[in-house]
Amino acid sequence: MSDTTRSRILEAAELLLRRHGPAKLTVTDVARHLGMSHANVYRHFASKADLLDAIAERWLHTVSGALEPIALADGPAAERLEDWAVGLWQQKRRKISDDPEHFAMYHGVAEAARGVVARHVETLLGQLERILADGAALEEFRITDPAAAARAVWHATVRFHHPRLVTADPACEAELRAVLALVTAGLRTGAL
Amino acid sequence: MSDTTRSRILEAAELLLRRHGPAKLTVTDVARHLGMSHANVYRHFASKADLLDAIAERWLHTVSGALEPIALADGPAAERLEDWAVGLWQQKRRKISDDPEHFAMYHGVAEAARGVVARHVETLLGQLERILADGAALEEFRITDPAAAARAVWHATVRFHHPRLVTADPACEAELRAVLALVTAGLRTGAL
Repeated sequence: MSDTTRSRILEAAELLLRRHGPAKLTVTDVARHLGMSHANVYRHFASKADLLDAIAERWLHTVSGALEPIALADGPAAERLEDWAVGLWQQKRRKISDDPEHFAMYHGVAEAARGVVARHVETLLGQLERILADGAALEEFRITDPAAAARAVWHATVRFHHPRLVTADPACEAELRAVLALVTAGLRTGAL
Repeated sequence: MSDTTRSRILEAAELLLRRHGPAKLTVTDVARHLGMSHANVYRHFASKADLLDAIAERWLHTVSGALEPIALADGPAAERLEDWAVGLWQQKRRKISDDPEHFAMYHGVAEAARGVVARHVETLLGQLERILADGAALEEFRITDPAAAARAVWHATVRFHHPRLVTADPACEAELRAVLALVTAGLRTGAL
């Protein structure tokens, strides 16, 4: 039951956030919207900052969650790497195209929730590392340190996933695939 | 003579900019600082925006100018590519370390001068293209379109040169070299 209350609070907070922005969000308004006491809201979230962190976490989890099947799949690692990186860009592109203002707002909320972003990046790096380790096991990639290789791939694709740089311009896909072609060749030849 | 006056105006404007920031910079103050009429300043710069553009251009030109010898050098293209990319990062790192507030201010001025930044990026891409075309001519790199390859290398290294992302953290150098190792291997194998 408690989980349901938590979800209801998060959903109400997200609705008010989308309507009025983070500055105007108050725990009192969330409680009023749900017809519950603010003491009840505070039982689940110690502060407004906690509430915003949880919203950012849920938002970012939709991104990493959608990529998880690619990280866990079988099949050639180079293809999965490309699907994963293009998939990450496409999700951001879609969010920006659908509603650029909300994307900017969520990004602002996430940036304020530094611990949440760091965990999100760790999750994504873990997925990348999984794909690269599979590629090493299959002798598709000549890498000895999949975690270090994952960081290099992450850095090489920042242009296409960093919230301050990513754009919805469809031309980005071909540009990203060109970067991935270079990087994948490097992973195959044991450059790292 | 006119060039000297122009330089003197630019130097005075830069001094006042460093002292008081871009918002407070006025053509009148620049003229007063030099003991000349503001009509004389306007003979060289049509507006305050023109003056800020010229300052941004000069600032960015110190960056591209320092890399030009690497672009024009002889020798293995892979080494020149690495020197060029690491050199670009090192210049930004130095500017940030020396004075982070001034770096942020100049970056703001440059961002407002969009045409200036676009020309600067074109200059840097031209240098990269020159190195890659030399590598193709030497059969070191298997690339058919050096301009497209230059864009891919530029995108793959955004993390280490984009003013909104670049940091003075010395660990960046090893991370950049890892990205370059992957990318260079890709250029050698004809992945693009």
